Amino acid sequence: MATKARVMYNFDAEPGNNELTVIEGEIITITNPDVGGGWLEGKNNKGERGLVPTDYVEILTNGGKDQFSCGNSVADQAFLDSLSSAVQGNSSTANSNNQVNSANDAWSNWNAGKSGNWESTDGWGTKPEGASAQKNTSNNWDAAFGHPQAYHGPAAAGDDDDWDEDWDDPKSSPPTYFKDVETSETGGVHRGNARAGGASMKIPLNKFPGFAKPGMEQYLMAKQLAKPKEKISIIVGDYGPMWVYPTSTFDCVVADPRKGSKMYGLKSYIEYQLTATNTNRSVNHRYKHFDWLYERLLVKFGSAIPIPSLPDKQVTGRFEEEFIKMRMERLQAWMTRMCRHPVISESEVFQQFLNFRDEKEWKTGKRKAEKDELVGVMIFSTMEPEAPDLDLIEIEQKCEAVGKFTKAMDDGVKELLTVGQEHWKRCTGPLPKEYQKIGKALQCLATVFSSSGYQGETDLNDAITEAGKTYEEIANLVAEQPKKDLHFLMECNHEYKGFLGCFPDIIGAHKGAIEKVKESDKLVATSKITPQDKQNMVKRVGIMSYALQAEMNHFHSNRIYDYNSVIRLYLEQQVQFYETIAEKLRQALSRFPVM
Amino acid sequence: MATKARVMYNFDAEPGNNELTVIEGEIITITNPDVGGGWLEGKNNKGERGLVPTDYVEILTNGGKDQFSCGNSVADQAFLDSLSSAVQGNSSTANSNNQVNSANDAWSNWNAGKSGNWESTDGWGTKPEGASAQKNTSNNWDAAFGHPQAYHGPAAAGDDDDWDEDWDDPKSSPPTYFKDVETSETGGVHRGNARAGGASMKIPLNKFPGFAKPGMEQYLMAKQLAKPKEKISIIVGDYGPMWVYPTSTFDCVVADPRKGSKMYGLKSYIEYQLTATNTNRSVNHRYKHFDWLYERLLVKFGSAIPIPSLPDKQVTGRFEEEFIKMRMERLQAWMTRMCRHPVISESEVFQQFLNFRDEKEWKTGKRKAEKDELVGVMIFSTMEPEAPDLDLIEIEQKCEAVGKFTKAMDDGVKELLTVGQEHWKRCTGPLPKEYQKIGKALQCLATVFSSSGYQGETDLNDAITEAGKTYEEIANLVAEQPKKDLHFLMECNHEYKGFLGCFPDIIGAHKGAIEKVKESDKLVATSKITPQDKQNMVKRVGIMSYALQAEMNHFHSNRIYDYNSVIRLYLEQQVQFYETIAEKLRQALSRFPVM
Repeated sequence: MATKARVMYNFDAEPGNNELTVIEGEIITITNPDVGGGWLEGKNNKGERGLVPTDYVEILTNGGKDQFSCGNSVADQAFLDSLSSAVQGNSSTANSNNQVNSANDAWSNWNAGKSGNWESTDGWGTKPEGASAQKNTSNNWDAAFGHPQAYHGPAAAGDDDDWDEDWDDPKSSPPTYFKDVETSETGGVHRGNARAGGASMKIPLNKFPGFAKPGMEQYLMAKQLAKPKEKISIIVGDYGPMWVYPTSTFDCVVADPRKGSKMYGLKSYIEYQLTATNTNRSVNHRYKHFDWLYERLLVKFGSAIPIPSLPDKQVTGRFEEEFIKMRMERLQAWMTRMCRHPVISESEVFQQFLNFRDEKEWKTGKRKAEKDELVGVMIFSTMEPEAPDLDLIEIEQKCEAVGKFTKAMDDGVKELLTVGQEHWKRCTGPLPKEYQKIGKALQCLATVFSSSGYQGETDLNDAITEAGKTYEEIANLVAEQPKKDLHFLMECNHEYKGFLGCFPDIIGAHKGAIEKVKESDKLVATSKITPQDKQNMVKRVGIMSYALQAEMNHFHSNRIYDYNSVIRLYLEQQVQFYETIAEKLRQALSRFPVM
Repeated sequence: MATKARVMYNFDAEPGNNELTVIEGEIITITNPDVGGGWLEGKNNKGERGLVPTDYVEILTNGGKDQFSCGNSVADQAFLDSLSSAVQGNSSTANSNNQVNSANDAWSNWNAGKSGNWESTDGWGTKPEGASAQKNTSNNWDAAFGHPQAYHGPAAAGDDDDWDEDWDDPKSSPPTYFKDVETSETGGVHRGNARAGGASMKIPLNKFPGFAKPGMEQYLMAKQLAKPKEKISIIVGDYGPMWVYPTSTFDCVVADPRKGSKMYGLKSYIEYQLTATNTNRSVNHRYKHFDWLYERLLVKFGSAIPIPSLPDKQVTGRFEEEFIKMRMERLQAWMTRMCRHPVISESEVFQQFLNFRDEKEWKTGKRKAEKDELVGVMIFSTMEPEAPDLDLIEIEQKCEAVGKFTKAMDDGVKELLTVGQEHWKRCTGPLPKEYQKIGKALQCLATVFSSSGYQGETDLNDAITEAGKTYEEIANLVAEQPKKDLHFLMECNHEYKGFLGCFPDIIGAHKGAIEKVKESDKLVATSKITPQDKQNMVKRVGIMSYALQAEMNHFHSNRIYDYNSVIRLYLEQQVQFYETIAEKLRQALSRFPVM
């Protein structure tokens, strides 16, 4: 029987993109469940075929008869499939994961898993807006892509890279450290999610080596942690624990996107030039290299530092140039974020990404990074806070506070994005059309008046015509304005949405560690571990807490700077906008004869 | 069988007004075909009962089976009924009238009747937008009333007067001059049309004594017209034919609306105080007296001068005070228009309306006005242009030009009203809501930020809060602005829509007269009239033409003044509006810390 799916959100096809317009509640037949890039091909009951984002539909397991099944989207199914093949028989994990991931929102991911041993219990999950409310709001930005008047940044599509293309060298095997634990899960990376705008992290961290329960146990309970070669310093400054910032900072300029091709031109891709400002040397990278870097950073630092997703890959479309430009701008913003981070920017993998000298060095570095064992929670073993040990109560309070703040800010940022999105649509759609109409109506009236044959009204009619033209100009000003102000406000909030989407996993790891320590009393009582072992555990959770606090302080100082800058810019542009309109109208007014 | 009606336009009930929400295409059962004021009571198929404007539905003569009957509205039916009872057997006239009136638009009235002998052929009727387009646009203003965000002026309802209440004295019998012609049609006045906003004249003029075909024949073909006591002068000035303006002008202040009652408080009404600025003496008038004046002016001057309808009576509602105030403002505007007109302001009936000394004088004057025989086309017999006779070609050209101009202006004015209406809705509805949301979202974000526990961000958070509040203030400014500028632009256009709605009848009369003269060649050829009789006819049509030109020159000079004033005002207010917003945003910006 053909697989059916129910449409969960309205989706407007963009002309020329082989997309299919579907409306909420519609049942479609899936003709190809995964055409790549987060799209499936479906057929509606009129027989029209086309692409639909997988996240916009939920598969109906009994072919469309179960009208009330929910939370089982095609994306989840694809994820599940990828897991099933990778995990090989670990079906209970896969199922719970499918559950957890159902709302496509990292926050609900965390909330939904609260009953497990590993995931800690948390108050958020019981909030009345719960999963369904999040479902509605979390995709507002994403759903925007595709709407003709929606906030796209300027971009909406543009496939220039082949996601499932082979790597230049065979995928490295996972590091031996994890081999005995959950080796096969290394491959369980599910990306995609068409038009997701790179805002939220789609990879559940506990599917990565080092994030999984045994990794955490290893970190917390090892009698002696291997002395790592790397060292990440944490000091206590005026604002509390902080990373140590390098004395000289650098940025990275992403520029010059160029189309390359391989396989005798059969496959084409875009290559970007990256120039680190400290060395002024350039390297070239394709999108998939960025993606590789993202994955490496996520694997290595993701349990301590939020690593926002890359801008979305997008699909082929018209205006390809503009989309490439837009994606480049977002890659630029992403790279700048990474360069700004004292831990990430100094990491070997990041440095190597920017500074390799030739293909051979790149490949060697790549292989080395993939073999890195100091990943997942083991990253905390590289940290040595120059600060007194923390007690568990304080650790827990800090963790709660961060959870509360990041959740609240996530809500706030999403609300602003929703409102901004709505405002963007109005400013680029109905509002300028209306000013246009006012302008036309005035000009029409002036034309009629001119036909009166009555003497001495030329001045008035010219003035009315000019007033009409002024309203047409205002229409253009209104339509163009969002690119000058709202765009930046949206981009900033979009970036922060990306950061904030990483926190449920980070906090989840911390809470899991805290629970582990709490449970350790039983182990001490049954003499499975010594009191000293428990002390070590508290100390190690304390290190995690210092890392969290250092990261939050980094986050806050950036946040304050970013929001101050972007809201200032927004207001400055708005002032100028309203002043320009007032001035134009004043000029129009001055043409009216005084009677 | 119960009478059924099909709903032609969506109508949203206002809460508390006993109204019934109906949607286009819905079939309702009429439980009371005329509750007065242009309303009927109906019942929908859920059994809900309530009032619906008669103009919004069409009766289904076979109880709802004929799904495609059209143009037979309840309003027409009511009019038809009133005629049937009055005309007594003249059913063919009544039927044609029902046809003519079908679109509830004075313009289509004129166009539709073009095939008759009396109504002349005209090109407008063949325009592609024809009747149905006019049907859609002509009611834009009217349909607005009732929408919660619609342009109401501030008013939407308020019944304080009893339309079908008895007059203080028995209705006078029609003047003897017309008695032998179409006596019984005097009573055929149909008003009402709920929410029609007084924009277009609902009374087909040819149902009035003096407008009917025999009246025109009498005027054109009488061997000798009786020397009238009145004289309306037309001179030729710099701009062509013009009325003679009185040396001193006056206005009339409508003020102090007071509730009065009669029948031991069972019936209440509102009485307004009218003070003429030249005498400074006051008289009191109820709405029905204004209505009486309107009808008298229409009967007497309506074939030469556009007499716009009064503001609508409206029905009882909440906010009665505001509605009374609004209606008073519109009565004021109407009276000012009348005072500004050199012919109307000097007329006996108008003077008497403003200057009677006591109840007895008012009643005497009223009776006298109702007996006036110099009404309809006979008004032209009072005019003696001090100008050379015109030839028929020139007369025809002038008439065509006026017809073309007034039709074009009518279209232009309606377009501006439609656009303004739409803009009004946006400015008072979605737009301020959106600014409100932006404001709230910013304030929420600031609240979240304040909970970070990070030091030194108080200034930023205060600034963001202020910026949020500023957007809330902008929301209010946006919502309040239309009352300060668009309102006046709308009122002005609304008044002109009223004027322009009178022209089809005026031009119709002129074209009819021209046709009559053209046909008179046959009468000369068959010796039924002498060449001298024909010369007289041309001369009399020439007088009509001078009157039309004089009126048009009056119209144009007022139009130029009014539109100059109102667009100036609009632009001034708009400039101030945008400057205020810019200033508020500048203040908000100044609070942001410089980093």
